[in-house]
Amino acid sequence: MTKLGELFRAEIREQPAALLRLLERADELESAGRALAARSPSVIRLIGHGSSDNSAVYAVYAFGLLTGWTALRDSISLTVYYDAAVDFSNSAVVALSQSGATPDVVEYVRRARSRGALTVGITNEVGSELAHAAEIVLPLLAGPERAVAATKTYVNELAALALLCGAAAGRGAELAEQLRRTAELMENALDPLERAVAAVAVPFSYVGRMYVIGRGLEFATAREIALKLTETCQVAAEPLTATAFAHGPVAALDPLFPVWTIASRDPSLPAVVDAAAKVRSMGAMLVASGSAAGELSGADYVLPVPEAPAPVLSPLLSVLPGQLLSAALARAKGLDPDHPHGLSKITRAA
Amino acid sequence: MTKLGELFRAEIREQPAALLRLLERADELESAGRALAARSPSVIRLIGHGSSDNSAVYAVYAFGLLTGWTALRDSISLTVYYDAAVDFSNSAVVALSQSGATPDVVEYVRRARSRGALTVGITNEVGSELAHAAEIVLPLLAGPERAVAATKTYVNELAALALLCGAAAGRGAELAEQLRRTAELMENALDPLERAVAAVAVPFSYVGRMYVIGRGLEFATAREIALKLTETCQVAAEPLTATAFAHGPVAALDPLFPVWTIASRDPSLPAVVDAAAKVRSMGAMLVASGSAAGELSGADYVLPVPEAPAPVLSPLLSVLPGQLLSAALARAKGLDPDHPHGLSKITRAA
Repeated sequence: MTKLGELFRAEIREQPAALLRLLERADELESAGRALAARSPSVIRLIGHGSSDNSAVYAVYAFGLLTGWTALRDSISLTVYYDAAVDFSNSAVVALSQSGATPDVVEYVRRARSRGALTVGITNEVGSELAHAAEIVLPLLAGPERAVAATKTYVNELAALALLCGAAAGRGAELAEQLRRTAELMENALDPLERAVAAVAVPFSYVGRMYVIGRGLEFATAREIALKLTETCQVAAEPLTATAFAHGPVAALDPLFPVWTIASRDPSLPAVVDAAAKVRSMGAMLVASGSAAGELSGADYVLPVPEAPAPVLSPLLSVLPGQLLSAALARAKGLDPDHPHGLSKITRAA
Repeated sequence: MTKLGELFRAEIREQPAALLRLLERADELESAGRALAARSPSVIRLIGHGSSDNSAVYAVYAFGLLTGWTALRDSISLTVYYDAAVDFSNSAVVALSQSGATPDVVEYVRRARSRGALTVGITNEVGSELAHAAEIVLPLLAGPERAVAATKTYVNELAALALLCGAAAGRGAELAEQLRRTAELMENALDPLERAVAAVAVPFSYVGRMYVIGRGLEFATAREIALKLTETCQVAAEPLTATAFAHGPVAALDPLFPVWTIASRDPSLPAVVDAAAKVRSMGAMLVASGSAAGELSGADYVLPVPEAPAPVLSPLLSVLPGQLLSAALARAKGLDPDHPHGLSKITRAA
């Protein structure tokens, strides 16, 4: 007899070790990054669903900041369903899939490759269809992920993308070293954070809807935390950039509508500080997380994380409070985050 | 003494006339489309917030389908806040802003132009800062929009983008003619739709959260309907693609959690039909709208719209039930959609 959510919690706790496993094979990411740089693509097309799409959001910023390249989360529909005449000739594709089995991701990669794109597949399953379809295959090395909700494969996707971008920019070794220190910071943060989220889980048991706000690099974190809370805790948590929040959703707030904000010490911080002030002025409950959580005044709950060795790596640490709160909240609500109802590990949906 | 939401409703009803005003100046859009084609940009960078960002989602598909070009909703943060070394030399920028006064959109356009991008500004205010910053200015001609929540400027943005893409593809006259017929279909649809939404507004008065699902071209519509419901009716309505819905949020559904689906007769329809079936199997309430609403079996409420003269124009009609339900639901809840609390017409937030 296993405890509810035992797999999910164990996989969250295993993340520092999974990250170190990936770093042992940093040379493969280094050569893939060089192959990308040699091609000097005019655009990088990122593809993925669910948590892998959140990693793609991260990659838009990581490529922009480290290489100056334009990366976009491409539309799968345009190529796979509408059969639009997209020109792939100066493109590189980076496809992300934990299982490597998502049908429309695999089909997109096949079409893009046949039309001249350099294709890179990042997956936890090196024997998967995605691994066969892509020209360059990069294993996530996260080990088997048995809970339906992704955790360690998400963090390893972020790390693989950071290394890929770093290598493309000629800074692979520097990023690898910074990731090693990130694994250590993550390991040390887990126990105190797990204690801190326990105090938040009980009052959140009756929360039905929530916004999760991040900007820039941390918008990926906002999306991933919202997805964890939605799929494991049945909270309708919507991720928003600080700007999108101000352009409409702020009007829906009331005192029973909590807002989670992710604040990191980077140029997007003032926008997040402004958003948090708006949340407070509407009387809504505020959760402040991130390495600069202390800058958000008047928060009802503060869940800070250590500052990453480089700003581009902060999302690897910022996601932890969201993962751990999801585990604690699911338990408080009597839900099983290992097997959320209506979901399976490989989503076959088109 | 004016009635609650009088401006909002009048501006929804005025949309066919606003669309015809834009078509009178189709020649300006025609030359802008040719200027874009002459530059043959490697990417089109779309910029906008709120409803204008939803128009940008539409433009990703309209450019892909009509011209085969790669268009992306660019990150404002990377250029304006992180000051990343983005290469704009083979880019065109299409910036969308009803007011033309959104500070970070204007700043982005200035930087992109100074770094070599062809810049196009689409705005309802031809004397605005955006109009001064962009090389080519295209007026929306929607007339003054006095309700805070955008309606006629959104539909005119879609029409302007369709004409711009059509002209770039050498099909400007064809699109202009199809848009003329769309204005007529819209005019005829308003009365019956307004009667139909009245029956939905009362049972929705106690709805606190909702998903709005669309795919492909209609993802723009899903986003815009969700935004209207959120800002005018205080419903936490989250827009999702059919695929993103299946990758997590489906697990949060329960019988009190309605889902609105937009079904149009195009290659994305099977994914939307699948999503609607999942909604029903989870016991949640289903609203079916769009020209193919009849294909979604077991819907609790059906709000069909006429089929557009071309598939690429269907979002101009699909948005109507969402706008009209927002007006009716706000009234049923005693809220003022002309002046939602916490919002103003020009959002200065960074």
